[in-house]
Amino acid sequence: MSLLHQDRLFSSDPRRRDIARDLYREIKGLPIFSPHGHCDPEWFATNAPFDNPAALLITPDHYVLRMLVSQGVTYEALGVGAGTDPREIWRTFAAHYHLFLGTPSRLWLDYTFEVLFGLAEPLSPATADAQYDHIAACLGRDAFRPRALFDQFGIACLATTDAATDELRQHAAIQASNWDGAVIPTYRPDAVTDGDNPNFANDLNSFQAIADVDISTFGGYLEAHRVMRARFRALGAVATDHGLPDAKTLDLSMPEMEALYATLRVDPKPETSAKFRAAMVTWQARLAQEDGMVMQLHAGSTRNHNAQVFARHGADKGVDIPRSINFVDDLRPLLNAVGNDPALRIIVFTLDETTYSRELAPLSGAYPALRLGPPWWFFDSPDGIKRWREAVTETAGYYNTVGFNDDTRAFPSVPARHDMARRCDCAHLAERVADHRLTEPQAHEIARLLTYDLPRQTYALSVPCG
Amino acid sequence: MSLLHQDRLFSSDPRRRDIARDLYREIKGLPIFSPHGHCDPEWFATNAPFDNPAALLITPDHYVLRMLVSQGVTYEALGVGAGTDPREIWRTFAAHYHLFLGTPSRLWLDYTFEVLFGLAEPLSPATADAQYDHIAACLGRDAFRPRALFDQFGIACLATTDAATDELRQHAAIQASNWDGAVIPTYRPDAVTDGDNPNFANDLNSFQAIADVDISTFGGYLEAHRVMRARFRALGAVATDHGLPDAKTLDLSMPEMEALYATLRVDPKPETSAKFRAAMVTWQARLAQEDGMVMQLHAGSTRNHNAQVFARHGADKGVDIPRSINFVDDLRPLLNAVGNDPALRIIVFTLDETTYSRELAPLSGAYPALRLGPPWWFFDSPDGIKRWREAVTETAGYYNTVGFNDDTRAFPSVPARHDMARRCDCAHLAERVADHRLTEPQAHEIARLLTYDLPRQTYALSVPCG
Amino acid sequence: MSLLHQDRLFSSDPRRRDIARDLYREIKGLPIFSPHGHCDPEWFATNAPFDNPAALLITPDHYVLRMLVSQGVTYEALGVGAGTDPREIWRTFAAHYHLFLGTPSRLWLDYTFEVLFGLAEPLSPATADAQYDHIAACLGRDAFRPRALFDQFGIACLATTDAATDELRQHAAIQASNWDGAVIPTYRPDAVTDGDNPNFANDLNSFQAIADVDISTFGGYLEAHRVMRARFRALGAVATDHGLPDAKTLDLSMPEMEALYATLRVDPKPETSAKFRAAMVTWQARLAQEDGMVMQLHAGSTRNHNAQVFARHGADKGVDIPRSINFVDDLRPLLNAVGNDPALRIIVFTLDETTYSRELAPLSGAYPALRLGPPWWFFDSPDGIKRWREAVTETAGYYNTVGFNDDTRAFPSVPARHDMARRCDCAHLAERVADHRLTEPQAHEIARLLTYDLPRQTYALSVPCG
Repeated sequence: MSLLHQDRLFSSDPRRRDIARDLYREIKGLPIFSPHGHCDPEWFATNAPFDNPAALLITPDHYVLRMLVSQGVTYEALGVGAGTDPREIWRTFAAHYHLFLGTPSRLWLDYTFEVLFGLAEPLSPATADAQYDHIAACLGRDAFRPRALFDQFGIACLATTDAATDELRQHAAIQASNWDGAVIPTYRPDAVTDGDNPNFANDLNSFQAIADVDISTFGGYLEAHRVMRARFRALGAVATDHGLPDAKTLDLSMPEMEALYATLRVDPKPETSAKFRAAMVTWQARLAQEDGMVMQLHAGSTRNHNAQVFARHGADKGVDIPRSINFVDDLRPLLNAVGNDPALRIIVFTLDETTYSRELAPLSGAYPALRLGPPWWFFDSPDGIKRWREAVTETAGYYNTVGFNDDTRAFPSVPARHDMARRCDCAHLAERVADHRLTEPQAHEIARLLTYDLPRQTYALSVPCG
Repeated sequence: MSLLHQDRLFSSDPRRRDIARDLYREIKGLPIFSPHGHCDPEWFATNAPFDNPAALLITPDHYVLRMLVSQGVTYEALGVGAGTDPREIWRTFAAHYHLFLGTPSRLWLDYTFEVLFGLAEPLSPATADAQYDHIAACLGRDAFRPRALFDQFGIACLATTDAATDELRQHAAIQASNWDGAVIPTYRPDAVTDGDNPNFANDLNSFQAIADVDISTFGGYLEAHRVMRARFRALGAVATDHGLPDAKTLDLSMPEMEALYATLRVDPKPETSAKFRAAMVTWQARLAQEDGMVMQLHAGSTRNHNAQVFARHGADKGVDIPRSINFVDDLRPLLNAVGNDPALRIIVFTLDETTYSRELAPLSGAYPALRLGPPWWFFDSPDGIKRWREAVTETAGYYNTVGFNDDTRAFPSVPARHDMARRCDCAHLAERVADHRLTEPQAHEIARLLTYDLPRQTYALSVPCG
Repeated sequence: MSLLHQDRLFSSDPRRRDIARDLYREIKGLPIFSPHGHCDPEWFATNAPFDNPAALLITPDHYVLRMLVSQGVTYEALGVGAGTDPREIWRTFAAHYHLFLGTPSRLWLDYTFEVLFGLAEPLSPATADAQYDHIAACLGRDAFRPRALFDQFGIACLATTDAATDELRQHAAIQASNWDGAVIPTYRPDAVTDGDNPNFANDLNSFQAIADVDISTFGGYLEAHRVMRARFRALGAVATDHGLPDAKTLDLSMPEMEALYATLRVDPKPETSAKFRAAMVTWQARLAQEDGMVMQLHAGSTRNHNAQVFARHGADKGVDIPRSINFVDDLRPLLNAVGNDPALRIIVFTLDETTYSRELAPLSGAYPALRLGPPWWFFDSPDGIKRWREAVTETAGYYNTVGFNDDTRAFPSVPARHDMARRCDCAHLAERVADHRLTEPQAHEIARLLTYDLPRQTYALSVPCG
């Protein structure tokens, strides 16, 4: 018995299936580049065993939480805001596992169960306890510690996402250890660029303290970014990441920024915050022109839409909602300021699929700095990947994309996610070979490009990196 | 000769076709639940024979009117605003039947011709008269009266849509009859919640009169809704329906509503009307929390876009046009007020397909009360259903949907529409089995879920209901 | 060896492929109607040989420029703003030809190389020089002069796009020549209807001079349009074309227009310009009601998004970007003014795919004057055509569309583009026959309709026309 068919995600059309198999055979074993994600560096610094199955696979996974809660399960029953017995959480999960039919979570979980834990029976109330015990036992073994899994997964490089005020102690510990796994930080300065952050003043103080630069002027503030970006790079960072509610950017001069920054510090009104946030995107791009870091923009998530859930359980509990976005007008100041620099890399991600073909693919052809990030979040899925490829390829080609991002905090699912993406790419290419838009040799070249060359080149990752 | 192929709407890929056939075989005979539509209860109350073929199939069908008019046929030639000979209307229709190639109307009509009336020749000018005569003869027979068709169609429950001021005499007559067909009303209070309604003041008077409650205050007005909702429930109603130009909602307190209602009654300015309408969505949801009725929101139709057609021929003549909508911001007040109630059911329908994956599917995972209505109106079609399933399933799964709605005033097409939806669901599931995202047993479970369990459970319909 | 497979763009499913082959066999040889494009009439007037391969195929093609520039090639290396050796341009192009994999440009170019120039080896650095020499040699032969190619391509009619102030000397020369190719002008008055045009005042002066009508009043200005439209018609024109940043229209009376025009002439503020531009759409439609010309609206391109490229290299260099558009509200004044006229033809094109199913297909059913233009620009591609057909057909049917437009200034690619469109239509129809939504005879009828009857009828083209 098996949860996974060897031809999963390939067409049942024999010609397309055979081509997809051939393509997949060539790339399935390539190393995994994970240049954007949310794994905790502490796992790799301490290499402590993972906790119980529920704490590993359910409670921290916002995809899983949201589905269960949407069908009436309480957060507390899933261990959020309550010290629920992990086995009970697991049983609740197993009793609702049918809810995930048709979703990528189900495919990732089944892969994890079978490939990582050797479980070939479907999870169900009948098998829940035995599977819990089996996974719990696995987690106690050395082969399931974070570093061992990292190596077993064939990960060439894994980037975490870290606040601009982070001391990076875990990353320093990884570097200082005798383990050679390439776990690298990513500079995410949102908390010190967004005046709407309720903790903005404190975060600025921490930022000044850790950078050891006087940030009372914008010049000093910018210098503090320089200092911290350099400190991240020293620990292997190759990229920055920017989470934005919209894609608004502004191109303001130093004197304008000094005045705006002064206003923001005494009175962070929403308009002032929005203006500063928009202008800082362009200034971070200027720093990227100086230091060569890749810039990632994740734009268009309405955070904490469900106020009651946020109030009771905090952020990242599955209640962030995509929104419509206007890249054409919003990115124009940024792109007109720096977009013609062929040495700069700005990668854009969106949750508004309508912009794929209407805005992003056309923009990627109009500005050498711009590249298209892979499908994000709800669209990191077989149909989501298919729609994205179909929407962008005819205008942007393959070379204006950057390869796959798993973007996950669910470390055990990393190989499952990359495997899904590789299969979806092969299925996409197979369809184009089958209808003679590509030849087989061309498709093989593109398959390797998408899996290996683009992430390595775009992020300038060495192999092994770090 | 046959107009209908047994494998219609299934892929020609042999594997996918075979799976679809197997799935369809299991569900094709299940009873029809029609929890939202616009049939006239008078048909079932009086059980009078239907009029001539044109009056049954052409003049009242806005899909048919719009296509013919768009190609230069006049409304008058179709019997709208003129006492045109029905046979002439039929001949005009037959002469233009090729216009419907590629549309769901053609598939529904061909099904109706063949399955209901036993006609296997395509409609054309050459066959028009004979087919007219044949259908006219059928309509004179008892087997083609409304109740006989209802029974023959295998309908377990059919909901009509009725104004809040409706006396429900036809529904009472159906209940009092010796016929056991479950025809139930649906409470649609738009005319008394929308100050933009030109007849608003009169409709409020009728509302007060029929509810027999003093509605001079908002408290009284709300009580009148309670009274009327209860009267609808007593005749079997399980749901309310709300037609909205956008999805704007507000969460206002009783004192705020009293003030707003007072202003609205003396001077219904557009801003006041819009605010009241938005706030009433949330108040209707509160009433639904009290009485358990399911709430259906049909949002985003620009009514009567063609002013000349509206002026000459009135509403529902095929000139309503979908518009872009923002559920993320617009539904937030409603959802933050009541969306976390797992006992409440709010079903959202839209004509803006871009919101399927960007807004509605994510929202359905963030609020236990929210469910996704099936594709509405222009998207109740093979490609429309396919796009909808592909857009929502990976985020919302199957269990956050509610089954099919035929939403029709064309009673003879009810089985054709349900058959199309069932076939499309089977085709969708077959594709997922063929590429190994689902197993065959899982697909069978889901096929039954979509056809039978979800409508029954969501609307709490008994079998037979009423 | 061949670059082109005989079954390209057809499904690999044997049933669908066979049906597509049958359909394509019937229509592949039909004459080409090209009722909208940007070829230079001078080519056909002088019939001079085309320049070198780079000047023919690379430098003027904004699809090609944008892709190369997006990957770091400079405009200068491609001959834009620099007198680069054409062979060097060609070598640069060949070295980057892999960038076009997956794009329609690649398919058009490969077709052109193989069918027009008899080259069966893929373009690459290794073959670049030989292929350059071969194409250059071809261009020197009489068979590759513009008129010979026009005839060889089987073009029944080709429309150019010409300013309202154009003297049409080239068109007159074509008419006066002994060549019978139907090259006709199209009236594009944007420069004299758009007050935002930096050259507006001068263009108005030219307009007055060429029309020889006093345009100091709006009445005179409108008369000048009448005069020039008639002059275009005398040289075969059947249509006008209107490029608009959005779809905004207004319905203003003559007195309102007189006042607005007076204001615009003394002080063309953006608001005044926008209002005049919007109102002129409706007034051009009124002129179309008078003279029977077909009206084409190309709405929603943000011109010259990349300011630096525009400043250095001017317009049409690949940096125009689509934008979101609202046809429902924006076209309402126009459509309520003239949309019910069954003798008028307004064809709408968009770069916002979300409007296909939400707005344009429904609108085409609500107004007899409205027709849906084929996929434009970035969406004139296999996936673009497929998405368009799937989005509009179920609501608009086939008869509210108008056939294919190549819309190109790349004359050698005309047959490649029509061949792609025909194949895509056959693939679309074959899928619908394979799943029994259409019969084979119906599909054959529709295939011919889309290729031949619709363009001929919509634009009232005679065969041969002109």
